[in-house]
Amino acid sequence: MNTYTYPKFGAGLWHFANYVDRYAVDGYGPALSTLEQIRIAGTVEDLSYVDVPYPFTEGVSVSDVKEALANAGLKAIGVTPEIYLRRFSRGAFTNPDPAIRQQAFELMHEAAKVVRELGANYVKVWPGQDGWDYPFQVDHKNLWKLAVDGMRELASANPDVKFAIEYKPREPRVKMTWDSAARTLLGIDDIGLDNVGILLDFGHALFAGESPADSAQLIIDRGRLFGMDVNDNLRGWDDDLVVGTVHMTEIFEFFYVLKINNWQGVWQLDQFPFREDNVEAANLSIRFLKHIYRALDKLDIAALQAAQAEQNPLRAQKIIQNALLSSIE
Amino acid sequence: MNTYTYPKFGAGLWHFANYVDRYAVDGYGPALSTLEQIRIAGTVEDLSYVDVPYPFTEGVSVSDVKEALANAGLKAIGVTPEIYLRRFSRGAFTNPDPAIRQQAFELMHEAAKVVRELGANYVKVWPGQDGWDYPFQVDHKNLWKLAVDGMRELASANPDVKFAIEYKPREPRVKMTWDSAARTLLGIDDIGLDNVGILLDFGHALFAGESPADSAQLIIDRGRLFGMDVNDNLRGWDDDLVVGTVHMTEIFEFFYVLKINNWQGVWQLDQFPFREDNVEAANLSIRFLKHIYRALDKLDIAALQAAQAEQNPLRAQKIIQNALLSSIE
Amino acid sequence: MNTYTYPKFGAGLWHFANYVDRYAVDGYGPALSTLEQIRIAGTVEDLSYVDVPYPFTEGVSVSDVKEALANAGLKAIGVTPEIYLRRFSRGAFTNPDPAIRQQAFELMHEAAKVVRELGANYVKVWPGQDGWDYPFQVDHKNLWKLAVDGMRELASANPDVKFAIEYKPREPRVKMTWDSAARTLLGIDDIGLDNVGILLDFGHALFAGESPADSAQLIIDRGRLFGMDVNDNLRGWDDDLVVGTVHMTEIFEFFYVLKINNWQGVWQLDQFPFREDNVEAANLSIRFLKHIYRALDKLDIAALQAAQAEQNPLRAQKIIQNALLSSIE
Amino acid sequence: MNTYTYPKFGAGLWHFANYVDRYAVDGYGPALSTLEQIRIAGTVEDLSYVDVPYPFTEGVSVSDVKEALANAGLKAIGVTPEIYLRRFSRGAFTNPDPAIRQQAFELMHEAAKVVRELGANYVKVWPGQDGWDYPFQVDHKNLWKLAVDGMRELASANPDVKFAIEYKPREPRVKMTWDSAARTLLGIDDIGLDNVGILLDFGHALFAGESPADSAQLIIDRGRLFGMDVNDNLRGWDDDLVVGTVHMTEIFEFFYVLKINNWQGVWQLDQFPFREDNVEAANLSIRFLKHIYRALDKLDIAALQAAQAEQNPLRAQKIIQNALLSSIE
Repeated sequence: MNTYTYPKFGAGLWHFANYVDRYAVDGYGPALSTLEQIRIAGTVEDLSYVDVPYPFTEGVSVSDVKEALANAGLKAIGVTPEIYLRRFSRGAFTNPDPAIRQQAFELMHEAAKVVRELGANYVKVWPGQDGWDYPFQVDHKNLWKLAVDGMRELASANPDVKFAIEYKPREPRVKMTWDSAARTLLGIDDIGLDNVGILLDFGHALFAGESPADSAQLIIDRGRLFGMDVNDNLRGWDDDLVVGTVHMTEIFEFFYVLKINNWQGVWQLDQFPFREDNVEAANLSIRFLKHIYRALDKLDIAALQAAQAEQNPLRAQKIIQNALLSSIE
Repeated sequence: MNTYTYPKFGAGLWHFANYVDRYAVDGYGPALSTLEQIRIAGTVEDLSYVDVPYPFTEGVSVSDVKEALANAGLKAIGVTPEIYLRRFSRGAFTNPDPAIRQQAFELMHEAAKVVRELGANYVKVWPGQDGWDYPFQVDHKNLWKLAVDGMRELASANPDVKFAIEYKPREPRVKMTWDSAARTLLGIDDIGLDNVGILLDFGHALFAGESPADSAQLIIDRGRLFGMDVNDNLRGWDDDLVVGTVHMTEIFEFFYVLKINNWQGVWQLDQFPFREDNVEAANLSIRFLKHIYRALDKLDIAALQAAQAEQNPLRAQKIIQNALLSSIE
Repeated sequence: MNTYTYPKFGAGLWHFANYVDRYAVDGYGPALSTLEQIRIAGTVEDLSYVDVPYPFTEGVSVSDVKEALANAGLKAIGVTPEIYLRRFSRGAFTNPDPAIRQQAFELMHEAAKVVRELGANYVKVWPGQDGWDYPFQVDHKNLWKLAVDGMRELASANPDVKFAIEYKPREPRVKMTWDSAARTLLGIDDIGLDNVGILLDFGHALFAGESPADSAQLIIDRGRLFGMDVNDNLRGWDDDLVVGTVHMTEIFEFFYVLKINNWQGVWQLDQFPFREDNVEAANLSIRFLKHIYRALDKLDIAALQAAQAEQNPLRAQKIIQNALLSSIE
Repeated sequence: MNTYTYPKFGAGLWHFANYVDRYAVDGYGPALSTLEQIRIAGTVEDLSYVDVPYPFTEGVSVSDVKEALANAGLKAIGVTPEIYLRRFSRGAFTNPDPAIRQQAFELMHEAAKVVRELGANYVKVWPGQDGWDYPFQVDHKNLWKLAVDGMRELASANPDVKFAIEYKPREPRVKMTWDSAARTLLGIDDIGLDNVGILLDFGHALFAGESPADSAQLIIDRGRLFGMDVNDNLRGWDDDLVVGTVHMTEIFEFFYVLKINNWQGVWQLDQFPFREDNVEAANLSIRFLKHIYRALDKLDIAALQAAQAEQNPLRAQKIIQNALLSSIE
């Protein structure tokens, strides 16, 4: 029996928050401070990293966060500026009001500072309010220009910091500007800076009609895979379910592509356990991801590549089922 | 030039609220009291009815609401018990905890009382938290039994009040129990009571992969169309956009079916103008609905029915385009 | 190590045909006769049943088919009248032309005869051309009436034969009349005959936005599950992929529901291996289904039911992963 | 009353063919020769151009086609090599077999010749069989490389001919390689040749989850909009319905973007009237497109742009409804 050295696991800190939505306006549980969320995250077995939303909850300073992370045995992998709160509900980079765009930049510059202070890897940029809701609402040329120019401005002002764009087809906007792997890479080409890349969310790729494995390969081939996170959904929405509960085969293929490209990085969770115990949800997720890791070890990669050279799906599936359908521990 | 006597128009009172979602947790605007929402609704031209969520916001009594409605020149068409707040986030009728189910019943009994006091038409029952999120989460037989038995219990305890179930495929649950027109009619058959029917939401039907016109016909043929409301979306989600902004033809077909069946009732809006002026949104909607009403008047129904008898879509489309693409006023 | 007595496996005979589509109009391979298809089916390991389309290919008689089945070691489970060929391209039961409807009935009466002659279980009725393509194309009331009345007429004329309706949301029609489990049960209620039931296709249920497990339960609870078949897809279309290649968890839940309801019947394949070796495709499928069968044997059902009583998805998923992620043999 | 000089209208020649699919294997009508299809196309009012599939049907030469086009009063806008027939069912550019790839190149070189001989504008390249069906079937890096390198090879060998890639998310493959506007532009960037561009199909963009108007703008901004065609669908599949029957607003926005960018080109139809009279279908389509053209003339573009500068959808919608809902002629 093998002993495995697993990759490092991480999670968005919001995994350990409580949520609201447009119906349960009183929330699925009481609001928790940044420090409480960190403390809870620290109780997950085998969690090493968190992505920390910024601003922190009221009264919490960077040094408080540093201390809480140290106490919890955690590090920050990224910082996520909340450019999707009320102020930015009509857009951050693409807000029609230049004064609001300016506020968004300021918030992101501060997030870059926090990245430096926490020794994190990147600012995660998720402009969920940038986009449109209705046909004819926007001038598409102008909207895209605002999105691309703004990202360039941000990244060139912070050349020592990485910016990882997390694309998603939609929500909260009916249509998001950075909606897919290919569109985001196209924008990154236009930006022309080395410190702009992609945070690839497995569920967003599924939701976008992509093969997450293919998207990972495409992004890696352009040297832009700055980070990734996983979860699951039913393809029609960004459900942020616990990883492995629906798409076992495709998550396996996703990690297979990371492995053959020798991508080294944190295996992160981006999940919203609205009605579940969030620590148990994280533990179940990591248990499953370890199974995936072991299954990759068992996988006959040479045989799989031979089957893929012939594009023979039956042979490929037999090989991967042999590895995936081995006993979970 | 014709003078038209338009149908009565209505709206869910939430049309005039502000919203939160899982990202803009500080809301798209400040929270408004039930009375403020009613006052704003009263400023919409040609609005006669509202559907009122219950409980009212803090400190507001039924007599306050009555007075506010009178002042605003509005009537209550329905009352919507909020069986989707935190307490009920794991379900109302189908909550695994019998004590919570009991609380849900109590809230709905109160809503029935408010219907009586306001002289409204029905309790609207929208059990948005009843359902499941994950494969294997529930015993499907038991869940459906709880849903059907609970609805029967509720309706038989209030035989003088109508209960209108509003089905929707999903959200906030990944899968809702009352998910489609047919499933809801099947449950209603099992319930076996005359005072349980359906509130048909145009957008929910689209989202469910139905033809809303067909669903309306099916529900009418079983005598269960207790109410309806309209909005628009891109079919993949319950976007609650302003009616007429995307699916002009299908909303026209929907109202055509209501007309040929001589369905008399309020033309209601169920829209969430997250980032828009909600009064302007209602006015634009009603302007469009009046166009639809006039277009129905211009429609050559005999010719259309002849085309439909042959199932000839080209002829049918030519006829309806002649009516729909006439000048909006 | 256990020795298992597996259920009987079956397949639609078309699994062993070649296909055309609207682009590859010269077909993905040469056309094969009914007898050749039977011969090929006979080479699949562990296949016991086939569903036979009718009419047979040119020059093939019922006794030819009987003989070929015997030679191949196969039995007919059902007969599928091809009420979706050119003649019926504007509908079978719902065709606007009564003469064509009559022809469809005649073909289905013949299929009923073949069921008797082959000792099969049912006529499978899949009215893929019954429905509509465009808004306003049909009178929905009339269309549904034709569908329901026609099915009643057919079944009452053949009281000794079972008729299994296979619902599907769409294709080749943009919208099919029998589109979902609930709608089909609603129609069956209206028909009011014992010999009309449902052939539940796993992939059609997924495509319809249903949980196939839930649909199975609903149909079983009304005593109408006459047959079932499996395959896989990406939820957005009836891809008829090899079972188990995408939705491992949901196929497991589907068979779990059949097991706890003690449903005894043939585990059938309805797959279209357009570009693959169809015998290998069937063998891979059956290998996977045997794994599912063994995993059900390993499943801690009591623990699962306890988790479901609390609607606890994390606990449920852990239990089912323990069973599903055991070594395939 | 204005007299309008309308744009030129065109259609894929297949609009006037008959179709088969995987169910109606005997076709929705008798097969028609290339020359018969051209003759029928010639009976459509106001049709000036056709896109001609190649190879022509048996026994038809280029000079036959030339003569038939002249007799019908038509010109060829493009030539579409049928790189999706049986031979290429496992791929054209990305076929695992180099010999088949070679055959695909040869066919496309011939198509380039026909473009020259007919004086057409481009070879339309639609590699519908290039892609995959199953998770793990292909090496994504290699597949994309084959697609891009092959297109470069083709275009560089025919520098005097334009190649217009028509992207589509899927069908007949479960996933197509050239699946979206952004991905196709990314590939075109990598190809690095001026004579490779895009044929933008309105329905494919809708099906891909894009705003067709936004896709048009993105492609125009990179100078790659070589052609376009229109139709309609329900967003979940490439239904190829008659234009204007479902998405009136979005087709209007699409043509609005073409207008403000001063894009001059043929307004083509790509429709599959499976069960309808194809000439009537084309006439209805062109009638609708003329309405769109006139509505663009009535549109208050300055007011719309002011509304868009504020991203105000209510104001924008009011303005466009005023233009679109004017009387059709």
